[in-house]
Amino acid sequence: MGTLGARLLSVAPGEVVLELPFDKRLTQQTGFLHAGVVAAIADNACGYAALSLMPPGTEVLSVEFKINLLAPGAGSVFRAAGRVIRAGRTLTVCSAEVVATDGDREQVVALMQATMMSVQGRPGLSD
Amino acid sequence: MGTLGARLLSVAPGEVVLELPFDKRLTQQTGFLHAGVVAAIADNACGYAALSLMPPGTEVLSVEFKINLLAPGAGSVFRAAGRVIRAGRTLTVCSAEVVATDGDREQVVALMQATMMSVQGRPGLSD
Amino acid sequence: MGTLGARLLSVAPGEVVLELPFDKRLTQQTGFLHAGVVAAIADNACGYAALSLMPPGTEVLSVEFKINLLAPGAGSVFRAAGRVIRAGRTLTVCSAEVVATDGDREQVVALMQATMMSVQGRPGLSD
Amino acid sequence: MGTLGARLLSVAPGEVVLELPFDKRLTQQTGFLHAGVVAAIADNACGYAALSLMPPGTEVLSVEFKINLLAPGAGSVFRAAGRVIRAGRTLTVCSAEVVATDGDREQVVALMQATMMSVQGRPGLSD
Repeated sequence: MGTLGARLLSVAPGEVVLELPFDKRLTQQTGFLHAGVVAAIADNACGYAALSLMPPGTEVLSVEFKINLLAPGAGSVFRAAGRVIRAGRTLTVCSAEVVATDGDREQVVALMQATMMSVQGRPGLSD
Repeated sequence: MGTLGARLLSVAPGEVVLELPFDKRLTQQTGFLHAGVVAAIADNACGYAALSLMPPGTEVLSVEFKINLLAPGAGSVFRAAGRVIRAGRTLTVCSAEVVATDGDREQVVALMQATMMSVQGRPGLSD
Repeated sequence: MGTLGARLLSVAPGEVVLELPFDKRLTQQTGFLHAGVVAAIADNACGYAALSLMPPGTEVLSVEFKINLLAPGAGSVFRAAGRVIRAGRTLTVCSAEVVATDGDREQVVALMQATMMSVQGRPGLSD
Repeated sequence: MGTLGARLLSVAPGEVVLELPFDKRLTQQTGFLHAGVVAAIADNACGYAALSLMPPGTEVLSVEFKINLLAPGAGSVFRAAGRVIRAGRTLTVCSAEVVATDGDREQVVALMQATMMSVQGRPGLSD
């Protein structure tokens, strides 16, 4: 997230908002924010939301995610809001919405549904 | 892709391979390649594979993708192979596999299933 | 839906609720409602929600969907609420939630994210 | 699967094929096999494929799946081939392809990517 330039806007139990300013280096051929970058901030919002409900010392891994790109990544600021839908012992299901803002104009640019896994003391393992 | 440092390894009709060298700036908290970066190269491999079967002048947009992260993004080189499963008039369905290589060791780190849309002369529209 | 025994509970622009009574014939090996049945009613709720915003004479096809199964399909009645997230010219993105009810107890059993396509006068074609 | 009328065609370690004859009761408004039924047999093929690599006494639950519907469900016989992509301790990732056959004509009608979970001695729990 550091490389992208994203920062945490808010953290509540099961709900996290990240913000990413538009950056030319993160665009695709058409000048819009790259789908991979949109996915990265949505995935991170989901991961942090899941983590916010886990015991201290737990790490979180993305098992999988699915994202619909609803509109081109056009805007000056991108906000990814992640939310826990169901927190299980091992798996947590989250959803995230990415909204692009440009002055007064707001547009939902992506919707993600993701599965996160809590990991304790198993560095380097995805399962 | 330029910012990421990825390059095209091979292009055949409906099949494209991209390569991305490991880069510390693209890692997540654990030191592995960020899931968003893995998704970005898989998405691009799908997009180029779809584009390879479309008439000249067509652009391609990612409608949606789903990715399973199978193993941590550990390796010195990451290769994303995208393949067209079905090319329709408007929509093309692709799959992609991302393989991490480290010396002699190869590991599949992600599997993607994606829907791409061909766009002609409609810049800035996702649908 | 007739074979399943589902019925429409409510239809508003972009929002549809379906109801399916539990039926032993629709269970999997463990006695819970089969994941395919849960997916079928969620998919239909998405399809009808999409259709509710399309011009008369349009048909709707499921391009793809992704479903997370959050809890076993236990309950006497299953309600699938589908909602349009973004209605485009060709593609409509929807989400659906399936809730199981058993007396006073309610539980979300599944969450779906789906892409629907409007089709006009092209019977038998998915694209 | 009994209600649907599906049967196992073949089982090898990590690979399973199911077959479902066309049945009018399983169609949607257009006369094609319902997307939910296509998803059900693909999901089952994935589940059995995952189970084929698990120790005896293990049960398998579908965590989530994503399916692209590539062509209308037209044909006299539907074959779902499920394959394990990665078998982990807790999670197994599978893919499945559904092929419709009508006389000499074969067509891939769906592609699924799914996450399965092994469960031991925890009946009624999805996680």
